[in-house]
Amino acid sequence: MARIVMKFGGTSMAGIERIRTVANLVKREWEAGNEIAVVVSAMAGETDRLVNFCREASSLYDPREYDVVVSSGEQVTSGLLAIALQAVGVPARSWLGWQLPIRTSDGHASARIGDIDTRALNESLAERVVAVIPGFQGVATGERVTTLGRGGSDTSAVAMAAAMKADRCDIYTDVDGVYTTDPRIVPRARKLTKVTYEEMLELASVGAKVLQTRSVGLAMKEGVRVQVLSSFVGEDGAVRPGTLIVGEEEIDDMERQLITGIAHDKNEAKVTLVEVPDRPGAVAAIFGPLANAGINVDMIVQNVAHTTGSTDVTFTVPRADLPRALDTLDKERATIGFAKIVHDVRVAKISVVGVGMRSHAGVAATMFETLGSRGINILAITTSEIKVSVLIEEDYTELAVRVLHTAYGLDAPEDAAA
Amino acid sequence: MARIVMKFGGTSMAGIERIRTVANLVKREWEAGNEIAVVVSAMAGETDRLVNFCREASSLYDPREYDVVVSSGEQVTSGLLAIALQAVGVPARSWLGWQLPIRTSDGHASARIGDIDTRALNESLAERVVAVIPGFQGVATGERVTTLGRGGSDTSAVAMAAAMKADRCDIYTDVDGVYTTDPRIVPRARKLTKVTYEEMLELASVGAKVLQTRSVGLAMKEGVRVQVLSSFVGEDGAVRPGTLIVGEEEIDDMERQLITGIAHDKNEAKVTLVEVPDRPGAVAAIFGPLANAGINVDMIVQNVAHTTGSTDVTFTVPRADLPRALDTLDKERATIGFAKIVHDVRVAKISVVGVGMRSHAGVAATMFETLGSRGINILAITTSEIKVSVLIEEDYTELAVRVLHTAYGLDAPEDAAA
Repeated sequence: MARIVMKFGGTSMAGIERIRTVANLVKREWEAGNEIAVVVSAMAGETDRLVNFCREASSLYDPREYDVVVSSGEQVTSGLLAIALQAVGVPARSWLGWQLPIRTSDGHASARIGDIDTRALNESLAERVVAVIPGFQGVATGERVTTLGRGGSDTSAVAMAAAMKADRCDIYTDVDGVYTTDPRIVPRARKLTKVTYEEMLELASVGAKVLQTRSVGLAMKEGVRVQVLSSFVGEDGAVRPGTLIVGEEEIDDMERQLITGIAHDKNEAKVTLVEVPDRPGAVAAIFGPLANAGINVDMIVQNVAHTTGSTDVTFTVPRADLPRALDTLDKERATIGFAKIVHDVRVAKISVVGVGMRSHAGVAATMFETLGSRGINILAITTSEIKVSVLIEEDYTELAVRVLHTAYGLDAPEDAAA
Repeated sequence: MARIVMKFGGTSMAGIERIRTVANLVKREWEAGNEIAVVVSAMAGETDRLVNFCREASSLYDPREYDVVVSSGEQVTSGLLAIALQAVGVPARSWLGWQLPIRTSDGHASARIGDIDTRALNESLAERVVAVIPGFQGVATGERVTTLGRGGSDTSAVAMAAAMKADRCDIYTDVDGVYTTDPRIVPRARKLTKVTYEEMLELASVGAKVLQTRSVGLAMKEGVRVQVLSSFVGEDGAVRPGTLIVGEEEIDDMERQLITGIAHDKNEAKVTLVEVPDRPGAVAAIFGPLANAGINVDMIVQNVAHTTGSTDVTFTVPRADLPRALDTLDKERATIGFAKIVHDVRVAKISVVGVGMRSHAGVAATMFETLGSRGINILAITTSEIKVSVLIEEDYTELAVRVLHTAYGLDAPEDAAA
């Protein structure tokens, strides 16, 4: 017998037929004698509908009331899945965030999970009753409803798994695992059997959108074994194994690869401040105001000084924040003292990720050589312990991913292509 | 300063534009210095959508989970109205059923309201914050969510008014008050300024569908002054006075009328058991099994005994229950011993209602004479202290309502026609 948290996203909950499919997946695990808590998202599209109602009601909506409104989507699916489970002979009940309760911070619309009281839940699980828990929601001080921010149901599932000391947290989604890169770009991408938390964090944060980043960080902190797998089953009703996300110690040397995957991200924009005076404090004058405006700066390059004693400073910001970034910098123009601002949204960030690169030199060199040999110009570079990222022109995104996937030996054998 | 409960139905909450209109109505009362609690229904159509989900998930759905699902509709509108109120400068917050809490019985899907804790609410009202409360919902033992059954938001509003010791409970709906009869049938129907609880109960239960019957009974028991009025405002933004539902002592002699209104109801079906043996216990053998099947029998007529020593027994049941009633009786055929069953759905019940008839003989006689003079055949009769009802052929419904409306002097003067 094991304790398992099963999490289903909005696509899996989109309508009663899909919910029935989910009920049958849960039934298989329950019949195997496991104790099961299921964490559910709202039906696909429902959260958007509710968020739009709030925005229509007031652009400056009270986040406490927003939470009351948008948390209802998961309330509906948790009740419906409990009904669908009972209909296939599996005892089940829903537990709303305030009923367990799932305590969170007061940060309405983006709360963080604190303590989860599992006493009543444990009694219910011991009686072989499946617990259905709405993701994305909790309850704060003064018993006000909170939500965790978009995509928060993954985090709810991992937090439940940690609180319940679950053996595994299975995240069912519309992909069947984590791949070495986007299979739409590289048909010979391979599904990974295992990936470390750290690698998953880098892959997720640079665009391989399988799991919400925060949930991976929480799983790493709490040591929760996460499996990503597809809720689409074959004719035998069985689920295919997905990708396990685990600690580095669980991956033995035989399995370990130098590079785990190649990620790409088109959500960045490049900004260059031309002719910034080359003096102490100049950089702080640029990035201080951006930080105060809540704009997350990623890659930063300070170019070679002009003969005039000034430098060009280039960096990237999320594309959605570009207008605010330009506005913020323009207001600080006198203080910073730059000549002009140039920006470009037609850029992409390409990253190679792998815990193996810690012990291997030459990963970055291979990357630059490979891109250079295809005439792909590198606009900026950042590195971390397990990642090298470069900024390139957007038009070269797919080419860059393909040649790097081959260069690091990630292509599946011809006959095993995905 | 007064304490007012304002209740808005599904049509008034159907979309953000309508919710904004409601916010402005609430604002007017709030600006006048009143303490306000607003009780809201779900958006029109939403409860049906949620009920259908439950039915689709399982025809034998668990009512505890049904309550989790369907209560979400009012949760959404209460949050949205709080946002809309804040947007027009009125401090407001939502209080879900479990937050106050509104304690109810364990009768899921048709719970009855018990205690309502108003301590936190009173503190909030004293700070000039408008309370927005989802109707139709509460919380039972073990902190499970309950709903009150369809139309329960009227009852929620009256119960809140009683618990808060409100000066008035204003029920905003899509009609602008209670009329002497259906204005679609009698254009010269008059809007009543005041009506007693007892009269309203009779008018509501026989088809003048303005307020849920249970809410009127509760208002009578708790002495809550209820006003029915329209949420559709004129160009000046002001609401027209509606109809006050009050105790008999609040209606002075000058205002008192013999007859308050004429109601009609096409939701009944007539059943006749032919040649029932005329012996003790025969009637019990008929109505016992129907009662056990939860079928509400209304009018009962036992006809003159045949020369054979048997009688015909005629009664009415709700039209929706007719198939079950026939089935139940058929199974009891041997015990009851009737010759055959005849049924007819093409019947209508016409009622004249008024507390004044207590002290006036001749009300029934006027009714029978008026209908007889138009050739309308009376199939059955029931009376109560403040009501006389007759069953007639459905085709005569409108004619009967019109001639009775005139006969009891209820027609508005020509120039004041509605």
